[in-house]
Amino acid sequence: MMKESEGTPKMKEIASYVREGAMAYLKQQYKVVIKVFIVLSLFFALLAYYFNVQNPWVPGAFITGGFFSGLAGFIGMKTATYASARTANAASRSLNCGLRIAFRSGAVMGLTVVGLGLLDISVWYLILNYFIESISESQKMIIITTTMLTFGMGASTQALFARVGGGIYTKAADVGADLVGKVEAGIPEDDPRNPATIADNVGDNVGDVAGMGADLYESYCGSILATAALGASAFYINPQMQTKAIFAPMLIAAMGIILSIIGIFLVRTKEGANLKQLLFSLGKGVNISSALIAISTFVILYILELENWIGISFSVIIGLIAGIIIGQSTEYYTSHSYSPTKKISESGKTGPATVIIAGIGQGMISTAIPVFTIAAAIILSFLSAIQFQITDMTQASNISLGLYGIGIAAVGMLSTLGITLATDAYGPIADNAGGNAQMSNLDPIVRHRTDTLDALGNTTAATGKGFAIGSTALTALALMASYLEEVKIALTHLGKTTIEISGRIINISQITIPDFMEYYHVNLMNPKVLVGIFIGSAMSFLFCGLTMNAVARAAQKMVEKVRRQFKEIHGILEGKSTPDYARCVEISTKGAQKEMMLPSILAIIAPIITGLIFGVSGVMGLLVGGLGTGFVLAVFMANAGGAWDNAKKYVEEGNYGGKGSDCHKANVVGDTVGDPFKDTSGPSLNILIKLMSMVSIVMAGLTVAYSIF
Amino acid sequence: MMKESEGTPKMKEIASYVREGAMAYLKQQYKVVIKVFIVLSLFFALLAYYFNVQNPWVPGAFITGGFFSGLAGFIGMKTATYASARTANAASRSLNCGLRIAFRSGAVMGLTVVGLGLLDISVWYLILNYFIESISESQKMIIITTTMLTFGMGASTQALFARVGGGIYTKAADVGADLVGKVEAGIPEDDPRNPATIADNVGDNVGDVAGMGADLYESYCGSILATAALGASAFYINPQMQTKAIFAPMLIAAMGIILSIIGIFLVRTKEGANLKQLLFSLGKGVNISSALIAISTFVILYILELENWIGISFSVIIGLIAGIIIGQSTEYYTSHSYSPTKKISESGKTGPATVIIAGIGQGMISTAIPVFTIAAAIILSFLSAIQFQITDMTQASNISLGLYGIGIAAVGMLSTLGITLATDAYGPIADNAGGNAQMSNLDPIVRHRTDTLDALGNTTAATGKGFAIGSTALTALALMASYLEEVKIALTHLGKTTIEISGRIINISQITIPDFMEYYHVNLMNPKVLVGIFIGSAMSFLFCGLTMNAVARAAQKMVEKVRRQFKEIHGILEGKSTPDYARCVEISTKGAQKEMMLPSILAIIAPIITGLIFGVSGVMGLLVGGLGTGFVLAVFMANAGGAWDNAKKYVEEGNYGGKGSDCHKANVVGDTVGDPFKDTSGPSLNILIKLMSMVSIVMAGLTVAYSIF
Repeated sequence: MMKESEGTPKMKEIASYVREGAMAYLKQQYKVVIKVFIVLSLFFALLAYYFNVQNPWVPGAFITGGFFSGLAGFIGMKTATYASARTANAASRSLNCGLRIAFRSGAVMGLTVVGLGLLDISVWYLILNYFIESISESQKMIIITTTMLTFGMGASTQALFARVGGGIYTKAADVGADLVGKVEAGIPEDDPRNPATIADNVGDNVGDVAGMGADLYESYCGSILATAALGASAFYINPQMQTKAIFAPMLIAAMGIILSIIGIFLVRTKEGANLKQLLFSLGKGVNISSALIAISTFVILYILELENWIGISFSVIIGLIAGIIIGQSTEYYTSHSYSPTKKISESGKTGPATVIIAGIGQGMISTAIPVFTIAAAIILSFLSAIQFQITDMTQASNISLGLYGIGIAAVGMLSTLGITLATDAYGPIADNAGGNAQMSNLDPIVRHRTDTLDALGNTTAATGKGFAIGSTALTALALMASYLEEVKIALTHLGKTTIEISGRIINISQITIPDFMEYYHVNLMNPKVLVGIFIGSAMSFLFCGLTMNAVARAAQKMVEKVRRQFKEIHGILEGKSTPDYARCVEISTKGAQKEMMLPSILAIIAPIITGLIFGVSGVMGLLVGGLGTGFVLAVFMANAGGAWDNAKKYVEEGNYGGKGSDCHKANVVGDTVGDPFKDTSGPSLNILIKLMSMVSIVMAGLTVAYSIF
Repeated sequence: MMKESEGTPKMKEIASYVREGAMAYLKQQYKVVIKVFIVLSLFFALLAYYFNVQNPWVPGAFITGGFFSGLAGFIGMKTATYASARTANAASRSLNCGLRIAFRSGAVMGLTVVGLGLLDISVWYLILNYFIESISESQKMIIITTTMLTFGMGASTQALFARVGGGIYTKAADVGADLVGKVEAGIPEDDPRNPATIADNVGDNVGDVAGMGADLYESYCGSILATAALGASAFYINPQMQTKAIFAPMLIAAMGIILSIIGIFLVRTKEGANLKQLLFSLGKGVNISSALIAISTFVILYILELENWIGISFSVIIGLIAGIIIGQSTEYYTSHSYSPTKKISESGKTGPATVIIAGIGQGMISTAIPVFTIAAAIILSFLSAIQFQITDMTQASNISLGLYGIGIAAVGMLSTLGITLATDAYGPIADNAGGNAQMSNLDPIVRHRTDTLDALGNTTAATGKGFAIGSTALTALALMASYLEEVKIALTHLGKTTIEISGRIINISQITIPDFMEYYHVNLMNPKVLVGIFIGSAMSFLFCGLTMNAVARAAQKMVEKVRRQFKEIHGILEGKSTPDYARCVEISTKGAQKEMMLPSILAIIAPIITGLIFGVSGVMGLLVGGLGTGFVLAVFMANAGGAWDNAKKYVEEGNYGGKGSDCHKANVVGDTVGDPFKDTSGPSLNILIKLMSMVSIVMAGLTVAYSIF
């Protein structure tokens, strides 16, 4: 990709502005995040060495998780900022050339994320395996796998800041630039006279590339680590099988990377095709990768000689299929080829209010298929792993094995991430290429080509979000089981060797999940559990509300800044003087940094406080409540936002009056409302759900030792 | 009230149009509802006599519950439709006279609802007590109280149709009338030239009066019945105490009615006061009633010699206080005296999109206080009832007693319903009076006075919604415990006398709640429970989405109808010919009837299907998932809708440019979006939550006998 030229001097200049802005943002963000990491690591160290309620490896694992997540985002953004001008330049030759550059750059990022993720997990496994000592090999594996989850927590924490901060940045710049540029000054999008336009393009990079990279790095690692931890506990009694169960998700993931590369090459082979054919060929790449992964899963688990290998292989395939169904339902509800989005466009005929009502209505209805699909995937991957012993599904050994099936279904769903992320990450590159083309006054045909590339990116981005949300639900369930393992370790730390459950004395190492449920009364009639569920549900809404408001406030500041530049710097609108792009980048950066703190800290603190007050059962309630409500809310926000975006595009294509009509204006309102829905609040919820689980796991020792109730 | 004159012939004519339209709607609605009731009753009869999985009293109790709920709505609406012209006429004399007529009419409705509710419960208790025979007195009480819950299911079913149908009707007419009248034809609200204007006024009656009456009748009865059922199981071993525990909620409710009447008279004593003083005096009436209820609760429970009477009295008071806190937080987040709503108004300066973003953001944040208040109320009323035996709170006997505390807290919260409903029900009367004044061409001062009355009504309506939502959460928990009792009865019906739980053989009659949790694995790591939670969460969103879309579709039909009348009937806009009001009423009626079926039937079928597939644990998951998500979603929708409404009013009072400014137009969009939020989808969720619980209870026999898993 780097061999391609960046084009005219003007194009190079603009690309360098964006690159500098993006780097400046990341530098600022990482500064803040580093402080948070230092504080949390010191806290973990305190818990480990002074209170003795935690593993001493935790602080180190936590920091590296954060570091690699940040690195994944950094590399993705670096690639994207170098690729955009090159894509624009290539698009000036042909649509096809543009697509190839953008897609290849996306592939660099996709493969970086998955490659880094798997590498980090393997290295940590080797380190911990070398240093940790325990009473038995099986116990050692439990400690290694649960400790590695702290690595996941580091990645989640960093991802949350990246998603929330990046999401606020990008939407504040986008909304701010649109409000003052398009609406007030009447200049087109990406016009170089708009001082916020560079900030807007920087936003695409820091939000949609760096944010998404960190997000999916976290999802990918999270599902593998949670499944490994479940494998360690499900096969506890058989150390040899235990190791196999830990390696299985890593091997499937590794195979997924290789097969994704093959898929990416398959996409590449199609030359000289039109856009529709390319979309088809892109889909073909993903489908072939999926099919190959399905087949190779059977081979891997057969060679591993994993117990119940046929059933567990089917669990992986159930995850894969569930991902595809969710992706397709997302497409149905957000693409303007289908009636739900067309209806939203049409409702613009009676004004913006009906556009919003229709979008919210359709968005809410669109949650049904993904939720029922995940519900079916949970039950089926569970039952498949225990070979459909329906009548005994609540038996202790079956519960562990079935949960392992759920975890590995998440790994299956994400195994195609290498290629799906490639198709996903190229969207913002195309978007930026369009911005560059516009600002460099390239031939309008170039802009038209990049717009076409962008539209394709919107579809793949929506599908990608479906995968991220779906895998979150499955991974979160797996993490809940790991939480119980960590509670077990915490009890041992506190010097307990046995517990008593309704008269039976049970050795700590032999406690099963149903025993735990009974010991801590983690049932639906325990008021602590119910209160936890309520708090978890409210957390999702509160978190969303805070991020929505943050975008509104930051956008407001941007609007004021731009207005002042129009007034103070003479000749901007006539194109005689250059606006101060850097100031706008700075405003958005500062706004995002300030606004991201409260929601992010809330996400970290909520499980700690709930644990300290309501104990283990309260925490379990919190996690389930957060998952149940957060999952549905995330689907709703992502789909409503995506649908509004495409409803506007549908009108712009000439329907219901076309561009400039009242119907179009009404749909622009929907699109603006949808921006924070789909790019800030919605995707952040995924991370919130998993981060709350990870925090609970790491803090289990504190909860067990000091909870009030 | 009937002594007051209806005013000029024109006023009488308009009032009679509205009355006829409302009656026509109710007639049509009851026709549909009767069919649903016949089908369901036959189904229940089949289950009782053929499958022997249900009590033979169920069909009868179900029908009477529906009948009295319908009657409560009918009486309320009859009162309201007779009161509106009289209020307008009285308001032409003075603000105070208008308020008195409207408030007295509201009080008629408030007292009718609570009086009817308590009467029906008492009569059914006497009938069942006379006819039902059982092995022991204690067992008999269990059967009586759980059977009476079917009466609650009848009330809920009717209320759901009333709220959904009425909500769709009122908002379709409102949105339709506004879109075509204010926006397209440029005529003011409630102008007699607008063919949809009568339908709009009818809507206030069928949605906000009949719908709300049925809703609160159901809440009121539901909380008393659920608490009585809990009392029967918590004091099972002591038949004498058991009867006392059953009577306690009824006695507190009865005392609440008497003290509400005193409160209403206290409001009445203030003559010649201005509006602000009247609002204060109104609040004083409620506060004095609340304080008196708190005191008399201690007296009642002391005289009853109920076990733990001090602790249980405090549970009642915790419920009362929680209701007040929720009411005040609702006021804070929805009244334009405070910053959240003002900020929404202000965001109109940058257009409708920012109004929507700010409203959704604030609405989501506003869920935190109510949810945390309810969480605190759950824990505290539970602990208070068991005299703060924190370390033993999960013991079997304490769980039952604590749940009784939660149930009776709901009764405490609703004990002031007589007076709060009076303040609530007068809102739509004032609204209609305003419509009547406008259409009859009365002096503008009259319209101004009725507008002032209407504004006061908006605040009390928002507070009333807070009470309804808060009590729903507590009642739903109580209903879950009743569900387990019904499962126990179902097991007996199937011929089981003992069950085995991890080696222990337990007699059915001695099964405790923790035993049940263990027997059915109702814990958070059971995939059936988790799937149930997901389905419950999705149900809330799906139900909301369907009702939102229903409003959009029905409004669209209304718009088309009105447009056609403007075209076909010449001279409407010049005021030369009368529009065909009846056709618009009919369109709205038909639209509402058609659209209410799918969401309502979904609410009834979901727990049945979940039960048949996933059994008892799946149903418990469904109920908890629906409660957790539905509760938060209901608060969000009610508060966001209320805030948008008042944000618009704040601009209309002359802020940020005042009426007609761009900021005002942006806020009108928010208000229109908020209409279905606060008057259709939000309040329907309350009923959905309880109806799903009631259906589960009634269908427990079917679930236990035939579930697949």
